[in-house]
Amino acid sequence: MALFTFSFSCHLLGAAASNYQKSTTSSPFLTELHYQQKDSRSLKPKKRSSWVCASLSEIGEYHSQRPPTPLLDTINYPIHMKNLSLRELKQLSEELRSDVIFNVSNTGGHLGSSLGVVELTVALHYVFSAPQDRMLWDVGHQSYPHKILTGRRDQMKTLRQTNGLSGFTKRSESDYDAFGTGHSSTSISAALGMAVGRDLMGRKNNVIAVIGDGSMTAGQAYEAMNNAGYLDSDMIVILNDNKQVSLPTATLDGPAPPVGALSSALSRLQSSKPLRELREVAKGVTKQIGGSVHEIAAKVDEYARGMISGSGLTLFEELGLYYIGPVDGHNIDDLVAILKEVKNTKTTGPVLMHVVTEKGRGYPYAERAADKYHGVTKFDPATGKQFKSSSQTKSYTNYFADALVAEAEVDKDIVAIHAAMGGGTGLNYFLRKFPDRCFDVGIAEQHAVTFAAGLTCEGLKPFCAIYSSFLQRAYDQVIHDVDLQKLPVRFALDRAGLVGADGPTHSGAFDVAYMACLPNMVVMAPSDEAELFHMVATAAAIDDRPSCFRYPRGNGIGVPLPPGNKGVPLEIGKGRILIEGERVALLGYGTAVQSCLAAASMVELQGLKITVADARFCKPLDGSLIRNLAKSHEVLITVEEGSIGGFSSHVAQFMALDGLLDGKLKWRPLVLPDRYIDHGSPSDQLAAAGLTPSHIAASVFNIIGHTREALKMMS
Amino acid sequence: MALFTFSFSCHLLGAAASNYQKSTTSSPFLTELHYQQKDSRSLKPKKRSSWVCASLSEIGEYHSQRPPTPLLDTINYPIHMKNLSLRELKQLSEELRSDVIFNVSNTGGHLGSSLGVVELTVALHYVFSAPQDRMLWDVGHQSYPHKILTGRRDQMKTLRQTNGLSGFTKRSESDYDAFGTGHSSTSISAALGMAVGRDLMGRKNNVIAVIGDGSMTAGQAYEAMNNAGYLDSDMIVILNDNKQVSLPTATLDGPAPPVGALSSALSRLQSSKPLRELREVAKGVTKQIGGSVHEIAAKVDEYARGMISGSGLTLFEELGLYYIGPVDGHNIDDLVAILKEVKNTKTTGPVLMHVVTEKGRGYPYAERAADKYHGVTKFDPATGKQFKSSSQTKSYTNYFADALVAEAEVDKDIVAIHAAMGGGTGLNYFLRKFPDRCFDVGIAEQHAVTFAAGLTCEGLKPFCAIYSSFLQRAYDQVIHDVDLQKLPVRFALDRAGLVGADGPTHSGAFDVAYMACLPNMVVMAPSDEAELFHMVATAAAIDDRPSCFRYPRGNGIGVPLPPGNKGVPLEIGKGRILIEGERVALLGYGTAVQSCLAAASMVELQGLKITVADARFCKPLDGSLIRNLAKSHEVLITVEEGSIGGFSSHVAQFMALDGLLDGKLKWRPLVLPDRYIDHGSPSDQLAAAGLTPSHIAASVFNIIGHTREALKMMS
Repeated sequence: MALFTFSFSCHLLGAAASNYQKSTTSSPFLTELHYQQKDSRSLKPKKRSSWVCASLSEIGEYHSQRPPTPLLDTINYPIHMKNLSLRELKQLSEELRSDVIFNVSNTGGHLGSSLGVVELTVALHYVFSAPQDRMLWDVGHQSYPHKILTGRRDQMKTLRQTNGLSGFTKRSESDYDAFGTGHSSTSISAALGMAVGRDLMGRKNNVIAVIGDGSMTAGQAYEAMNNAGYLDSDMIVILNDNKQVSLPTATLDGPAPPVGALSSALSRLQSSKPLRELREVAKGVTKQIGGSVHEIAAKVDEYARGMISGSGLTLFEELGLYYIGPVDGHNIDDLVAILKEVKNTKTTGPVLMHVVTEKGRGYPYAERAADKYHGVTKFDPATGKQFKSSSQTKSYTNYFADALVAEAEVDKDIVAIHAAMGGGTGLNYFLRKFPDRCFDVGIAEQHAVTFAAGLTCEGLKPFCAIYSSFLQRAYDQVIHDVDLQKLPVRFALDRAGLVGADGPTHSGAFDVAYMACLPNMVVMAPSDEAELFHMVATAAAIDDRPSCFRYPRGNGIGVPLPPGNKGVPLEIGKGRILIEGERVALLGYGTAVQSCLAAASMVELQGLKITVADARFCKPLDGSLIRNLAKSHEVLITVEEGSIGGFSSHVAQFMALDGLLDGKLKWRPLVLPDRYIDHGSPSDQLAAAGLTPSHIAASVFNIIGHTREALKMMS
Repeated sequence: MALFTFSFSCHLLGAAASNYQKSTTSSPFLTELHYQQKDSRSLKPKKRSSWVCASLSEIGEYHSQRPPTPLLDTINYPIHMKNLSLRELKQLSEELRSDVIFNVSNTGGHLGSSLGVVELTVALHYVFSAPQDRMLWDVGHQSYPHKILTGRRDQMKTLRQTNGLSGFTKRSESDYDAFGTGHSSTSISAALGMAVGRDLMGRKNNVIAVIGDGSMTAGQAYEAMNNAGYLDSDMIVILNDNKQVSLPTATLDGPAPPVGALSSALSRLQSSKPLRELREVAKGVTKQIGGSVHEIAAKVDEYARGMISGSGLTLFEELGLYYIGPVDGHNIDDLVAILKEVKNTKTTGPVLMHVVTEKGRGYPYAERAADKYHGVTKFDPATGKQFKSSSQTKSYTNYFADALVAEAEVDKDIVAIHAAMGGGTGLNYFLRKFPDRCFDVGIAEQHAVTFAAGLTCEGLKPFCAIYSSFLQRAYDQVIHDVDLQKLPVRFALDRAGLVGADGPTHSGAFDVAYMACLPNMVVMAPSDEAELFHMVATAAAIDDRPSCFRYPRGNGIGVPLPPGNKGVPLEIGKGRILIEGERVALLGYGTAVQSCLAAASMVELQGLKITVADARFCKPLDGSLIRNLAKSHEVLITVEEGSIGGFSSHVAQFMALDGLLDGKLKWRPLVLPDRYIDHGSPSDQLAAAGLTPSHIAASVFNIIGHTREALKMMS
């Protein structure tokens, strides 16, 4: 199967060619492109024929068999690329792109961002020498091409699976992964540390951080640039500008415009008149000089830079970084020429190279999709159709959105806030219903929380929907701006507990510990989706102090939903007994309640009927429930999908002060183990954590001395 | 006692006059100033006579009697200022300044920052109508003039004392305090929330955030500006630029230059040639027009703004804020004129007004001091001399610095990082010894932590010294960038536990809970200053995983220090028994060990000798120590100056899983109560927390049923 070669002419500094926006009605094989400036952000070349996706076969079908990749097959490590010509690098890029598509179609994963950086990855590994040169991929979900080129191609089929490759960079996985990632906006800080460390150690290697424009909206990136400009160590920051200031995951109504004023600033850079003129000049130059564009490229680049600077500093230059760009991130010639120049110019201090790329580039279905196939399940490469599991229930995320919409319909003061996760938090549904009451603040959790605090001061009722692991970014704001002032911000903590394929960076392990220690916070967790509706209603009703509720990744268990999807506020600090039994009581918190119920069934099959209770609240605790359970059972087991210091610790503290632990009661806490659980299937993760129903049932029998039954539970 | 009137001519946009740098050799009463541009940041007027501090009497003495304040005496609330003339506002400023100095000389507190914003505070309360107009003071330590003008003047003598006024703004203290503060860089976020909330609620008030250039280095400020520029709600951000990008608290070797590239950007704004020329023009204009400068001021301002914009956008404009400035922050005429203009121009979106002030302004001793009297103890206003307590010991902060210097002398890989707290963390001492191995990253805790993680990747051994409550700002970075990757960053958590006058915002209540739940972290706390030396040595030796140690505000207890101030690494996870006793064991963590020892003495006087142990480690716990204590005593009391979820929770978990709680042992956890402890004297705070030796001793007797002795302990 022959592949069309990706063969349009290279443009020096061709940002004009970098920003293709294809008409969605046109064929994916031959696309009319127009030089028409719809807005300041989109510069389009006038006409281009033979715009084809290299990953498509001659007859326009994408075969699910692995496409032939003769050149890529010769590359196991970057060292094998060093003698390639520019033309071969282009071919390598095409093969790499098709390999990424093929692999992700089999595993699912982050596709769009990886497709966007294929040429950049090739150029970086061609010009620089990893792992001596440190290469940091911010967030790390765009690192699939990097993984393929750095000795992990044959493991790509295990991506994000149990014992397989991580979906992000990971130091323990490869020396080529200079820094572990998952959360955004850490790369400049880490790279600066490595650059300063290199200088202190007297080494000479390069340090390169690749960071998206979305990640640039986070405060940490700004803190790092400000410090980099001050310390003035040599390092290279590559701003991968693909207009993704807000993540378009599961966008409902087509692509969302980037939020945040920074995106306008980047647009201005792209649309600056001197730059546009320069590009025209450069085109002519390129035609004449043919092959050895290197030196002239550098000169032209300098010129471009000078012109921008001449009319004032860019934001990056104000922070002390030497700005280069914009550069067409899909043009290997330009990328190689400029990266070589940057590499060879020593003692420049920090350099920021502004590269413009297209998310989903080269795979028409991704390019056309509203979400650019940011994250996909397994899919059919020939049609782009994703294999969605046909669940009877919706995700907790969706139920949360439904519940909040129902509350907001009867209370106009309810507003919603998220940090660049309209899809991930379900708030895009809320946005559609209440466009003026939904705020996407960008990747800016710190600001999101204090912004919400400010809203409460004016009488509004904000729900701040942030993943459990991302709220770690705003912990001080939760304490200092919300809890200490007792302001009624409602925190919806999605992705609580283990999260499957995304692994430990995204695992919501610590939220109960870090939220329940705060004096004014009401801390809840629903045991099923109906309870989630009630807890959203409860949080809406709590208007004199902050509250939070955590719920898991994944789908509901199929219980009946409340009428009209409208929850009923719970009595604060009241749990409930689900099964009355004897000898042993299981007191579950959140999703663990379901595991407790399943464990009780397993135990009952062996002839012992035990008690199961749903705590509902970690704070305030249901003291009388705990007292009753403790007094009428031999054993009390607390179960939660969270770290030490959370629910079980609060129960223990209560029982100790109440004297309930002074006698014969045996209390056992089942919490997440004291180690990070690697990515994998949810069931594998739960087993690794020792929190399956079998584990709970075995614990029951072990504690009451029935070792034989305990062993049976685990077999 | 007559006061000189503060009577130099007003300059329109007189930033030239705003940036006085006085020769330190000159008299405080008549200072020669020179128009000599030493660096781009300092513009100095050529000569100025009658530069006097209004707070000095005619004979050059500052009397400790309250100075006469005839005009201020008529102002209880801002409403009383509304009919004052500009001339009277100036007089009011002078009286206000002298009142601040008088009050703080009696109480101690944050002096320099409050003196810097006297005119700004007067102008704001004159032009705007608080509390309907929301006025937010970032950090809040500069709010003393605001407090005096908003009904709290007669309480200023209680500042920072038990049951007295807070040293920061506090919503529960006054309706005029729109938002509570203490930590930096929250004001723009909160103000934006209030502005959006106002719009949603259909109200018309103004929202004003006053934020220092230091606070601007924190990522949250950037996140908030980026969102403000996008949402485009009307709000006013006043950038109080006083060259305090790093806090000069307890600077050793004179004023430190601001760190961070942002300060250079601000300098460029101040030194821009068009602006300088404009100021000359403006001076002429002012002379001619006299009184009604309002409209012309606005026009000139527009002109200035236009000129800056003409040559490119400022960083703030790139983020979508309308930039005005620089404005002389000590010139009432300019401030009032421009603020009125900003107020009257509706639907402008967010405006950033760049105001240049001088920290410590108007009090010669503060102006001359390296730290600008940022935070002072009680002092003699006539001499500026602070009353320092003559302690036999140094602060834990200083001992930490000594210990780290000792380690760094024998290990060249040790480096130190702090976030704009060289004085507060003691690292200025380290800087003096190792200027190339100490990094002040600005108010940027997030970056500090990931930067440290990057340093470890190159083989360095970073000590990251951050207050317990400030590390909350970097919690995600601690988890995601350090602990998850098992990188050996050492966290020195100063100000752990209750902190006295700074109150709950600065209280280190949660660190044990939020650090000890992390799988790879070694978590320690010294019980005295010698232990601190050993734990610094221990942390230096732990090079395969992260570690932390917490220590309190205040002075050491006077134990002998290790030879050569060089600690000896402790065995990891080993505690120690300090007193062997019977029936009851007190297991203390950190400073609480001293309270346990004192309690044991009190108990022994009643004839009972109890055991006291020092856990040293919260993680890993000393299991055999705990097992021994649990098996050989009736009662085990864990004691710590930290929240629930911390040390006691870890001990409980261990004992539960070990079966130690199944029998008759009574375990009682003594932790900080589940509420915030207000500012006050350390002893009052400890009493409010129920953690004094008396409380511990009473608990001992209560649990063993000796109620009479228990009562005696508390009497």
